[in-house]
Amino acid sequence: MVNPVELIIKKRSGEELNKDELKSIVTGYIKDSVPDYQMSAFLMAVFFRGMKSREIQDLSEIYIESGKRISFPEELQTVDKHSTGGVGDKISLMLAPLVAACGGIVPMISGRGLGHTGGTLDKLESIPGLRTDYAEADFRRIIKKAGFSIISQSEELVPADKRIYALRDVTGTVESLPLITASIISKKIAEGAQNLVIDLKVGSGAFIKDLDRGRELGSLLKRTGENLGQKVNVVYSDMNAPLGFYIGNALEIKETIEYLKGAEVPDIDVLTRYLATRMLILSGRAKVEKEAADKINQALSSGTALERFAKFIEAQGGNPRVCDDLSLLPQSKHILEIKAEKSGWISSINCQGIGYALVNIGAGRKQIDSKLDYAAGAYLVPRIGDRIEKGDDIGKVYCHDRNQGLHTVNQILTAYNITEEKDSGLKREPEDIILDLDL
Amino acid sequence: MVNPVELIIKKRSGEELNKDELKSIVTGYIKDSVPDYQMSAFLMAVFFRGMKSREIQDLSEIYIESGKRISFPEELQTVDKHSTGGVGDKISLMLAPLVAACGGIVPMISGRGLGHTGGTLDKLESIPGLRTDYAEADFRRIIKKAGFSIISQSEELVPADKRIYALRDVTGTVESLPLITASIISKKIAEGAQNLVIDLKVGSGAFIKDLDRGRELGSLLKRTGENLGQKVNVVYSDMNAPLGFYIGNALEIKETIEYLKGAEVPDIDVLTRYLATRMLILSGRAKVEKEAADKINQALSSGTALERFAKFIEAQGGNPRVCDDLSLLPQSKHILEIKAEKSGWISSINCQGIGYALVNIGAGRKQIDSKLDYAAGAYLVPRIGDRIEKGDDIGKVYCHDRNQGLHTVNQILTAYNITEEKDSGLKREPEDIILDLDL
Repeated sequence: MVNPVELIIKKRSGEELNKDELKSIVTGYIKDSVPDYQMSAFLMAVFFRGMKSREIQDLSEIYIESGKRISFPEELQTVDKHSTGGVGDKISLMLAPLVAACGGIVPMISGRGLGHTGGTLDKLESIPGLRTDYAEADFRRIIKKAGFSIISQSEELVPADKRIYALRDVTGTVESLPLITASIISKKIAEGAQNLVIDLKVGSGAFIKDLDRGRELGSLLKRTGENLGQKVNVVYSDMNAPLGFYIGNALEIKETIEYLKGAEVPDIDVLTRYLATRMLILSGRAKVEKEAADKINQALSSGTALERFAKFIEAQGGNPRVCDDLSLLPQSKHILEIKAEKSGWISSINCQGIGYALVNIGAGRKQIDSKLDYAAGAYLVPRIGDRIEKGDDIGKVYCHDRNQGLHTVNQILTAYNITEEKDSGLKREPEDIILDLDL
Repeated sequence: MVNPVELIIKKRSGEELNKDELKSIVTGYIKDSVPDYQMSAFLMAVFFRGMKSREIQDLSEIYIESGKRISFPEELQTVDKHSTGGVGDKISLMLAPLVAACGGIVPMISGRGLGHTGGTLDKLESIPGLRTDYAEADFRRIIKKAGFSIISQSEELVPADKRIYALRDVTGTVESLPLITASIISKKIAEGAQNLVIDLKVGSGAFIKDLDRGRELGSLLKRTGENLGQKVNVVYSDMNAPLGFYIGNALEIKETIEYLKGAEVPDIDVLTRYLATRMLILSGRAKVEKEAADKINQALSSGTALERFAKFIEAQGGNPRVCDDLSLLPQSKHILEIKAEKSGWISSINCQGIGYALVNIGAGRKQIDSKLDYAAGAYLVPRIGDRIEKGDDIGKVYCHDRNQGLHTVNQILTAYNITEEKDSGLKREPEDIILDLDL
């Protein structure tokens, strides 16, 4: 084995590491011959010096080779979507059944919420009985039945990334584009996705704040996935306001079911259809956009997307009757009204502030072992560019503890930036949520 | 306590940390509430982002406050010298008794050798019986007797630096000027040195390769020491060739004694007198250079410097008769000749290469726990700009194992760069070893 200090110094000096060197430090870490403190110094050096695209590809391969790899026959053309994370981002929940209803096969391995954003697994587990800790055989069985499955990352899948991610989280080395790229792509390849659509979130509620940096990450993701044999599309979407009206685990399941039943949720609708179109074309389920759009319309209006969701819930141990009776979902003890404290035009929304305000009432996690209140969350009506009047009812907070809830109401109110003058440039159409596409 | 991840991210983003924040991470580390892996990520962030002079001063104070601080009455005007390290650098050994013989008081806490450079403590411990692990009371007693003492850093002195230095050594974060500065100045203040002369080595055999970077470190050292109440002079000296003729622990003691007895060692003589002059003026033992030079001449020619050295050896448990009988020092089993393999002019010397070649026969340490062979080392005659002829006897290797010794002979030969054309600009006078002075 190469001396880890030499590899740290090499990276620190801006040199490129070859695959053997990268493998030596990563597998050394997994086998405990490279200690945490050397790995974290190495990760910080990567943060500052970056990685060449060849190194990112090698690192992704080393991550994949560290564990098991699920594969599907090529003719299936499996397809997945990965979002870089945002507030109220429940798109996977409607997108996976919708694409499955259109004939797509979606093997999806998802994560939990940490910090100001929620996690798909937590949302799903708010459905009574539903589990996400299935092994490969069950994963395949559920996909066969429902056309899709959403499970958690097992210990066997990309263990190197799992351990290194946990270390990055506590050493200030999360925000490194090469490390983010290897982490995402290795998981998406190991889970068996032959096609991948990335929903790259850009804005105040995302960790990528501007489109230029977004494109930098997007092109790394696309190039790395494609070098490893995956077809990749990158959709850049706006994350300056929460997605949909509801935030909170059970509340987002409720919104998903309502949407699949035909409720109007403009931003969710635009983004879901757009991503579904890319997934269907990429996986060969549609040749052109029009064909994809027709299939999507049909799946939503006929109720087959909702049927897929119910089938999936049942296959993963949950009670599928929640689709007919939303009262079967966890219900909060208190529902508090949010009333506007002044009149004016909404010029911006601090999504991160809203996310953290909801963590305080149990909708998200402060620490990895924090307990969630599945029923907790918020319903928020105003969008950027809207006019509100003092005293208007602009939303609700769902909580168990009334005092904590009142505190969250106040925190949410301060997250809305209200100006007296109307800036007509602010008002956006739901379609504006799509910023760009990288085919 | 502040969350260490926040402090890592703050430094990573290039922000300044206040003293409370620095203290939180350093004392957290000492008390094991900040783990190694967070400290090493922080140190790597400091490597890339640097520190403001205020932060370096605060860090030095935090280091000093982490342990005991030895202090001497102000009227004593204690004075020490610190070298940033080079091959064959035995200057402390002649300098401390010389300055003491001129009336100076020198409390010196020194280190061991690691990598290609030797350590003063190892050299001293090659004297039969001599110890360096004395506590404060003995340190004071020895200084009273001999005018100087050279001991190792106890657990009680600057423990924060001690632990952080060990971590830097294994995480590729040694070469950070702010961290080097805090490490040196904190030790020199905690040992009680009211005046300090820095011998800042510049060249292929030092870790500082060019004078510009040397000045950067020199000015940080000077400013930090002075902000903390110390008077500091910085001498920049050349380290492109080994200092003196001998390298190796007992061999350097031999050279020290011979020098103090009047032997000619031109580069050692120039540098020792220059540093002694600065130390005497700084500590008020001489008003002007002429006065210092006279005292130095007197101490060397009358033998009082040698007497001080013998007194010191005796006070620290060693056999002072080595000063009269060099055969009492450890002797090597084999002495191998080094013969020039080709004729030409010496254009450069790879000091680091020589250092590592001697580590292989036990003159230095590969790892912190490597065993030393005190008798091992080399005698090397040629200087940069000298003419040598094929077959010339240019030096000797002292070793225990003949085969290893022969290998070292070959390694040393490759360390001399020999050119066919004479470059008259290369030949330097011994005086050229002094590059600059920062009063």
